[in-house]
Amino acid sequence: MEEREISKAVVKRLPRYYRYLGNLLDARVERISSNELSEMMNVTASQIRQDLNNFGGFGQQGYGYNVKYLYTEIGKILGLDHAYNMIIVGAGNLGQALANYVKFEKRGFWIKGLFDVNPRLRGMAVRGIEIRMIEELPQFIRENQIQIAALTLPASGAEEVTPILVENGVKAIWNFAHTDLHVPSGVVVESVHLSESLMQLSYNLNHMELEKEKTGQR
Amino acid sequence: MEEREISKAVVKRLPRYYRYLGNLLDARVERISSNELSEMMNVTASQIRQDLNNFGGFGQQGYGYNVKYLYTEIGKILGLDHAYNMIIVGAGNLGQALANYVKFEKRGFWIKGLFDVNPRLRGMAVRGIEIRMIEELPQFIRENQIQIAALTLPASGAEEVTPILVENGVKAIWNFAHTDLHVPSGVVVESVHLSESLMQLSYNLNHMELEKEKTGQR
Repeated sequence: MEEREISKAVVKRLPRYYRYLGNLLDARVERISSNELSEMMNVTASQIRQDLNNFGGFGQQGYGYNVKYLYTEIGKILGLDHAYNMIIVGAGNLGQALANYVKFEKRGFWIKGLFDVNPRLRGMAVRGIEIRMIEELPQFIRENQIQIAALTLPASGAEEVTPILVENGVKAIWNFAHTDLHVPSGVVVESVHLSESLMQLSYNLNHMELEKEKTGQR
Repeated sequence: MEEREISKAVVKRLPRYYRYLGNLLDARVERISSNELSEMMNVTASQIRQDLNNFGGFGQQGYGYNVKYLYTEIGKILGLDHAYNMIIVGAGNLGQALANYVKFEKRGFWIKGLFDVNPRLRGMAVRGIEIRMIEELPQFIRENQIQIAALTLPASGAEEVTPILVENGVKAIWNFAHTDLHVPSGVVVESVHLSESLMQLSYNLNHMELEKEKTGQR
């Protein structure tokens, strides 16, 4: 398959397809038409056909998509067909929430260690994952071939720890800190900025209300 | 100001401008040129000029933007110039992480209550915010004029609780559950799908590696 031809816009939508197809699989649905999927996902059927035709496996007219095939192919594109070793740096509530989320392991993201600067947390464990001190990071990353690090610590800490992660071989950073991390090429960053998401919500809340006032609905 | 004319694409970028302008304010910077901001934010200066010209207050040539003015105007657009009453439904690690995040209050998002189904949590408190049972939701929402609810509970729970929230007057849902919520018009939803963000990271990790193999870099 020519993976490289899939557009960025399609890639952004893939995890959502993957979620719906996974739910269908769990419900033992074998085939689904683009119209049915369209109704479930609230996306036009023609958008779905365009998107999913990237992966072949599109059924004959009136026969629908093979759910399992599509689910597997999309999983491969997303890199979910193999396992990753992951650490979480920052063992506060958010770090612990991620460590407790067993679904990540089902997808192949194995959480090998939790790190923090707080010496009071040393030796404690979350779901069997021991909390270690930041000083142990370099050796741990190398010995456990860690590819992914989730950063759930304040911005200044995230900026300090990033070069240490990169020098020791981490290739992907899942950043929850309220800052944009600078990494060399060959390292990818995906950020989850919670405050910014909340601001989008308040924007939408306010502008919906403005519209209502204008049109006189209440 | 004609707020309605700002495009969706610009609105999506506003929280990031707001963050950088806030950092500049903290550092007591009064004015900044589009070129300086461009370098900091890794966005072209012409993009910055286009985006920020939506808000007036653009400085004369060679004089730069007034940081405080822009920060305030963008805050207004985002609805950060007034306060919101918010609850968190789901008092697990993620709900507690949000409840502990004092920065939300600085932005005007006041967390008034935490709710859970687990009777063992009843009466406990996080940062002084009492954990209440789900049954108490309708009365609490009405009495405290709650506008925003963060949902940090599993998908099935989120789907069950959403109609209760909406019936009692919640207008905005910040959804962390792994599902797309269906709400009537007049209610807004902003979702944070953590698994999908992690899948984007693994996609980028894999495709960066493919590119490297192709071009022979290592």
